[in-house]
Amino acid sequence: MEFLVRAENLLPNDTPDDVRDQLKKAERARAMELREGGVLKRLWRVPGRNATIGLYAAEDPAALHDALTSLPMWKWMDVSVEALATHPQEKKE
Amino acid sequence: MEFLVRAENLLPNDTPDDVRDQLKKAERARAMELREGGVLKRLWRVPGRNATIGLYAAEDPAALHDALTSLPMWKWMDVSVEALATHPQEKKE
Amino acid sequence: MEFLVRAENLLPNDTPDDVRDQLKKAERARAMELREGGVLKRLWRVPGRNATIGLYAAEDPAALHDALTSLPMWKWMDVSVEALATHPQEKKE
Amino acid sequence: MEFLVRAENLLPNDTPDDVRDQLKKAERARAMELREGGVLKRLWRVPGRNATIGLYAAEDPAALHDALTSLPMWKWMDVSVEALATHPQEKKE
Amino acid sequence: MEFLVRAENLLPNDTPDDVRDQLKKAERARAMELREGGVLKRLWRVPGRNATIGLYAAEDPAALHDALTSLPMWKWMDVSVEALATHPQEKKE
Amino acid sequence: MEFLVRAENLLPNDTPDDVRDQLKKAERARAMELREGGVLKRLWRVPGRNATIGLYAAEDPAALHDALTSLPMWKWMDVSVEALATHPQEKKE
Amino acid sequence: MEFLVRAENLLPNDTPDDVRDQLKKAERARAMELREGGVLKRLWRVPGRNATIGLYAAEDPAALHDALTSLPMWKWMDVSVEALATHPQEKKE
Amino acid sequence: MEFLVRAENLLPNDTPDDVRDQLKKAERARAMELREGGVLKRLWRVPGRNATIGLYAAEDPAALHDALTSLPMWKWMDVSVEALATHPQEKKE
Amino acid sequence: MEFLVRAENLLPNDTPDDVRDQLKKAERARAMELREGGVLKRLWRVPGRNATIGLYAAEDPAALHDALTSLPMWKWMDVSVEALATHPQEKKE
Amino acid sequence: MEFLVRAENLLPNDTPDDVRDQLKKAERARAMELREGGVLKRLWRVPGRNATIGLYAAEDPAALHDALTSLPMWKWMDVSVEALATHPQEKKE
Repeated sequence: MEFLVRAENLLPNDTPDDVRDQLKKAERARAMELREGGVLKRLWRVPGRNATIGLYAAEDPAALHDALTSLPMWKWMDVSVEALATHPQEKKE
Repeated sequence: MEFLVRAENLLPNDTPDDVRDQLKKAERARAMELREGGVLKRLWRVPGRNATIGLYAAEDPAALHDALTSLPMWKWMDVSVEALATHPQEKKE
Repeated sequence: MEFLVRAENLLPNDTPDDVRDQLKKAERARAMELREGGVLKRLWRVPGRNATIGLYAAEDPAALHDALTSLPMWKWMDVSVEALATHPQEKKE
Repeated sequence: MEFLVRAENLLPNDTPDDVRDQLKKAERARAMELREGGVLKRLWRVPGRNATIGLYAAEDPAALHDALTSLPMWKWMDVSVEALATHPQEKKE
Repeated sequence: MEFLVRAENLLPNDTPDDVRDQLKKAERARAMELREGGVLKRLWRVPGRNATIGLYAAEDPAALHDALTSLPMWKWMDVSVEALATHPQEKKE
Repeated sequence: MEFLVRAENLLPNDTPDDVRDQLKKAERARAMELREGGVLKRLWRVPGRNATIGLYAAEDPAALHDALTSLPMWKWMDVSVEALATHPQEKKE
Repeated sequence: MEFLVRAENLLPNDTPDDVRDQLKKAERARAMELREGGVLKRLWRVPGRNATIGLYAAEDPAALHDALTSLPMWKWMDVSVEALATHPQEKKE
Repeated sequence: MEFLVRAENLLPNDTPDDVRDQLKKAERARAMELREGGVLKRLWRVPGRNATIGLYAAEDPAALHDALTSLPMWKWMDVSVEALATHPQEKKE
Repeated sequence: MEFLVRAENLLPNDTPDDVRDQLKKAERARAMELREGGVLKRLWRVPGRNATIGLYAAEDPAALHDALTSLPMWKWMDVSVEALATHPQEKKE
Repeated sequence: MEFLVRAENLLPNDTPDDVRDQLKKAERARAMELREGGVLKRLWRVPGRNATIGLYAAEDPAALHDALTSLPMWKWMDVSVEALATHPQEKKE
């Protein structure tokens, strides 16, 4: 099943640059793994904000939770999840 | 997977009594079927309102949508759904 | 550019069935044209509601507006649009 | 009577790991006691968040308050409580 | 246990005067019964609005729900209920 | 005149225990004075929160403001006040 | 004591012109009486809306309620009232 | 001074086409006059909605109110106005 | 033109008393100047809060902004401004 | 395409004056470049707040994001963006 995931990144502004850089690198690496695993299907930036909207696929909300909390930035992120139902238009294609 | 479902019943006040009664009866009958099928697990009233909070189980959001729209009152209900993730405390029990 | 589009369908409950059916049919036909034209990329149902979330692509907000208002149900829909920015993760793939 | 309880865990990110671990352990132990006492009936995670939704049973709101504040994490939690009314469908079963 | 109850009266403006008067009379009569039964403890008007705030006492939310729905105006009222916990200051008095 | 007063206590979690205890003691003492003076008529806890709902009586909003700000915890409290109008049902009793 | 009063006029658009005109005339006449009585101290339009913000003075919220409901347009108005406390700066002048 | 003006058009869906067309024509004509008079400086559509955002200039809020209410569609529009302050960056250019 | 100005004072609780006192004194002095200049016409306290509602007059929003930012407390204040339109009832007086 | 951009400046109050001054200078310099590049078309102050509303033009949301994040103050700004659709009235001029 698919989920729409909004994530505001609240990493404090006074985080040292090297810590931030390392986190971003690790975040990207983990995101790439989630892409390869078919969990992270699309990712967009919310223009003007340090925030993203992502389209995820996971077996259930618990599996999604595990995927999101595996992201190194997770503990600084304010995340909201919306479960999506397949639309009949897409079922029939 | 489980879902928390809030439903406000917006059936107009000027609905004739017999129509309303028939709808309530049919609603109850369908709800009972959903209970027997393991889809509707718990149902509460929001005190003071013509509204309910329900705990549902369904394979995925699309199956939940089909269950909810099978309720005769559905087209008068303002429904919001929240997907729940199993908590590790309960997994381990 | 891509847009996330939420649409609540507010078609009145007392709409005659034939009018409703004809509208749904026409809506589906127009949606299919938008899919073929690459405008409507994905469509989901908001579980429990007569509402959808869609991923659209259009040249600009005015083109998106034209696409959305070309849907026969549009005048009964409460639509909100969010412009999405391509994420660097996806640019580099 | 039953209550729906949402709890956002706002423990600061810079809490030392050992303090956090000890708190989580103590939280789990107390939660288990509340389960055994029939106070905590179900617990879910809000997917993507450090937050839970719980179904509690207590004699009255004051007893629920005492149960919630007995949780070691309570002082870092933003809690909201909703009192639930038994639904006639369940009374008659 | 005690509850704080807000009720907005949404009776349509075009309700005939005699219907409205009869409803108000019946509402007042039923409210008086609830007062005598110790259910309705205090009632205030929200200044400027056709709305009230009431302090109710009932055994549990289901009993409160029954009391509120016994009011003849109930089906035109938008009601919200907040369960109150006894404060230790008052317990000790 | 009467007022409904909500107060969220935002005293920081890292307040030393002795400071907190002293504040709570002083708060309780001042609250008792306000009760004796007929200013604080009822006090409830919002279940699950470090928050209260109080029913106050004061000559006017300025007098209420003085009463509330006389509470030692006031500067850590997020307070909202709602002026209540006497209901004709109670006038006539 | 003084109150800030917002009032949105929701008189339906299909109200016959003569009814509307008569109501506006009566409304203005009553407003003038409230001015002369020192109840309505200032009145502003919310620009772009059929709405006003008023500064009222009344003995208490019940007296304000009576003043507001004496306005012929009241039953079509969505009113919200905010009680104001005299500021020490003004007391000392 | 300048104002940002949001306007949702709530003209009912069942308005006869000829009435709607006449209103739109009149609306456009009046808007053009406001443009020529320097009152309406820019106008955008909110994509997906029957709504606009406009940049207006008027001597004061009362003059803006008169301009907006001179639009034939005004009585069906839900309008919100935000007064803008000239930014020093623009003063110095 | 006139403006309604809400200002929440967010000066941190741990501000040293002498700094706070000096700020309050300076704030009061500047407020008095704005009163004498006809800019600050009325000021109320929001009961129970460290907040005010003020009625200001200024040539335009930029002049109002300059007046507000001239207050020594301004940088700790969360301010919201609402432009008011003169009501015809008051024009004709 | 054009965008409406709201930006609240949340630079902490205890930022040293020289850091703040340098940031403001750099911000202004970059803003001027964006103006010259046709990206920043208009800028207003939200009266009473450390906040702006800007009218921007960019090829797409990603280009707008790059422009906004190029502002030295960006990391302290809470930004929200609204994509605007050209209105037919303006197309035809």
